[in-house]
Amino acid sequence: MKYDVIIIGGGPAGIVTALTAKNYYPNKNILLLRDVNESVIPCAIPYMLNTLKEPEQNRMGFGSLEKRGIELKVEKVIKLIPKDKIIKTEQAEYSYDKLILALGSSPITPKIEGIEKKGIYPILKDMQYLKGLIKDSKKAKNIVIVGGGFIGVEFCDELSKMENIKLSIIEMMPRLLYNSFDSEFSKLIENKLSEKGVNIILNRKVVRFDGHERVEGIVLDDNTRIPVDLVILGIGAIPNSNLAKEAGLRIGHHGSIWVDEYLRTSDPDIIAIGDCAEKKDFFTRKTVNVMLASTATSEARIAGANLWKLKLLRENKGTIAVYSTVVGDLVLGSAGLTERSAIKEGFDIVIGTTECVDKHPKTMPNAENIKIKLIFSKESGILLGGQVTGGVSAGEIVNIIGLCVQKNLTLTELETMQVATHPKLTPAPTVYHLIKAAQDAQNRLQNMYKKER
Amino acid sequence: MKYDVIIIGGGPAGIVTALTAKNYYPNKNILLLRDVNESVIPCAIPYMLNTLKEPEQNRMGFGSLEKRGIELKVEKVIKLIPKDKIIKTEQAEYSYDKLILALGSSPITPKIEGIEKKGIYPILKDMQYLKGLIKDSKKAKNIVIVGGGFIGVEFCDELSKMENIKLSIIEMMPRLLYNSFDSEFSKLIENKLSEKGVNIILNRKVVRFDGHERVEGIVLDDNTRIPVDLVILGIGAIPNSNLAKEAGLRIGHHGSIWVDEYLRTSDPDIIAIGDCAEKKDFFTRKTVNVMLASTATSEARIAGANLWKLKLLRENKGTIAVYSTVVGDLVLGSAGLTERSAIKEGFDIVIGTTECVDKHPKTMPNAENIKIKLIFSKESGILLGGQVTGGVSAGEIVNIIGLCVQKNLTLTELETMQVATHPKLTPAPTVYHLIKAAQDAQNRLQNMYKKER
Repeated sequence: MKYDVIIIGGGPAGIVTALTAKNYYPNKNILLLRDVNESVIPCAIPYMLNTLKEPEQNRMGFGSLEKRGIELKVEKVIKLIPKDKIIKTEQAEYSYDKLILALGSSPITPKIEGIEKKGIYPILKDMQYLKGLIKDSKKAKNIVIVGGGFIGVEFCDELSKMENIKLSIIEMMPRLLYNSFDSEFSKLIENKLSEKGVNIILNRKVVRFDGHERVEGIVLDDNTRIPVDLVILGIGAIPNSNLAKEAGLRIGHHGSIWVDEYLRTSDPDIIAIGDCAEKKDFFTRKTVNVMLASTATSEARIAGANLWKLKLLRENKGTIAVYSTVVGDLVLGSAGLTERSAIKEGFDIVIGTTECVDKHPKTMPNAENIKIKLIFSKESGILLGGQVTGGVSAGEIVNIIGLCVQKNLTLTELETMQVATHPKLTPAPTVYHLIKAAQDAQNRLQNMYKKER
Repeated sequence: MKYDVIIIGGGPAGIVTALTAKNYYPNKNILLLRDVNESVIPCAIPYMLNTLKEPEQNRMGFGSLEKRGIELKVEKVIKLIPKDKIIKTEQAEYSYDKLILALGSSPITPKIEGIEKKGIYPILKDMQYLKGLIKDSKKAKNIVIVGGGFIGVEFCDELSKMENIKLSIIEMMPRLLYNSFDSEFSKLIENKLSEKGVNIILNRKVVRFDGHERVEGIVLDDNTRIPVDLVILGIGAIPNSNLAKEAGLRIGHHGSIWVDEYLRTSDPDIIAIGDCAEKKDFFTRKTVNVMLASTATSEARIAGANLWKLKLLRENKGTIAVYSTVVGDLVLGSAGLTERSAIKEGFDIVIGTTECVDKHPKTMPNAENIKIKLIFSKESGILLGGQVTGGVSAGEIVNIIGLCVQKNLTLTELETMQVATHPKLTPAPTVYHLIKAAQDAQNRLQNMYKKER
């Protein structure tokens, strides 16, 4: 069977590539292959536990693809032969003109003693598997989450709604969400979880899982032992690049598939996107390990449009990490570099912060606190990144910060930005959060120069 | 008495200029003069009726100025003599090095028969006056709002919460919020107000107020008569430029004070900002009548920083209208040009629209609909404006659109923008609203070109 386009992978990257390709090249025939029959929307996996009424509500839908005439098959691809432009699945052989590798990533399962015991769950994007995890968790009395990244923290928040369980989260770094937030923001998350009775263990590694057939305890590197009957592993993911590696495609850093600016692999007819493809940081140009559905879909739009012609110029010249999350009623977002990562990368920076409420006057009903931190390059004045916490609107405030980063906004531009403000929706125009934070940075900058003189 | 800086006006523009000037020039002595003793936060005036517990909660505070050592006086300025650098109030005479005119605007009181009757209220930014209005409204049975702009619509929304009143809103244009939204968005607002029992009268002018001492009826240009015992006038405002005009400063369009890019009047030591100062549209460079606290404060930051040296380069080269409002639980925002205004100005445009929910999957609790419309310049691909309606987060989505306009974002940039998405905060990354709307515009563009070929 021959197709103009074959896409391997049924996650957000694969789906968006298929739809975008169909938009730009409506007469081409497209096949999308996936290996999991019932897959799930990745970002909402934690919410299958409690927030959603039924786990089934988080099923990944393929209706929009069928409607557009994109062919769908559930078959596992076992071989790719670039020189013949052929792929082989367990069932059949297909030839392609353009091939998209949207292979995704797999959760890291660390080589720790006892890792094979029952009751230890890495997070797979598979409905049946996750239903099993959810069922198992309802019987558990002691649950431990290993890994304080987004998946770990969000599972922790969901599980904290369960009654009569002991819940712990273990992170080897000094803070939760260490890579995405500076300490003062991580602290807010830790406080929220502590309030809900979660036992937060920082700066600790797991050295052993004990028990018989099923896990019964976790031993840490300070020799403490936590009794446990269910473990959730959220310690990161590795790119699914084996198919590409075996086919002789060039491999990049962290085991990802090497790609150029337009997501082309070392074979010009093969494109790799999403978690399996190499990413470069927007500022440092270093390879980074950002695995986000929103990054993947942005790449998918570029890849889908550019299959035969470069139609969508890649204007964003690298990957910025833009994240948002919710813990209890606290919304958090981070875009670009943190203060910690900027310093680590050698940037000379100036910080601006502000705190206000998200309505005005402050006495408006349901006003919530907003806290903003912006990180600027000191001499060039360009925004390197920012963090926000607040109510629901913080989920879009982080996208303003993200856009500012992508457009290289300067301190001055932020100070004089024109914004819409409304008593029920935002702080007053006199104290709009991003402008206030920029002004704070400007003040600090002036004080720095005074001292230097 | 001699001051380095005198600011006339205690609204958001005056306050922000004072604070900004103090930041940039900490050793200068600054006097702020205002003529209303108890003033209010302008944007929240409608919410003094109901949403706020007490009207007093909307008092404008000057504590932040006092803390910074800015002198405050309540005196009415009656004369400005630029050649002597002197102003005279009813009480005293002051000389200045730099003078800021932040004189604001006054509500239009149209020359309609019977306009002088009791019970007819233009909206003044004066606490005592507004308390009188609120008290009076509690006794009213028939209330009519004249003018379907933001003030009118927001008063209407607030008053619709009162029981046992008949409430009408009259607008001479074919739709409510006609200048800021296209019809399909205005329709949503009209539906919300209709649901609440408001009588919406479009395409009609008021020709007469009748009654004895107090207003008893409104007669429209189709001769219908509406019985009324309280009228709220929200039909626009005119710049307070008399002081400047009498002093011989150059006057711009619409009676506003002429200013250059850096808000300097025809006298280089006198700066005018906010509602009293002339504004130019970002795209057309025509003078526009945008009176927004957020525009005023943006100008105030530029003015305050640049009093003696041009420190803050004005990077935004014109005024964009960025608005948000709330009607019931419906949040609406508009930035830049509408489809109607873009066509009227002669732009060749392409539209992109999308509808989605503000969470994912759609079954997440409390998911609300989002509707987006983007207006692009067809050939140049630059975003001219956009409108949004949705839940609380729409209040910041409009600021993303506003920033896109200010940075001249193109269709391609929007299509490939990197965003943060989260199940509880935003649509899925596959269907993020602004990206989807840009894609829709791209599709329409391609179809247009196909037809043209």
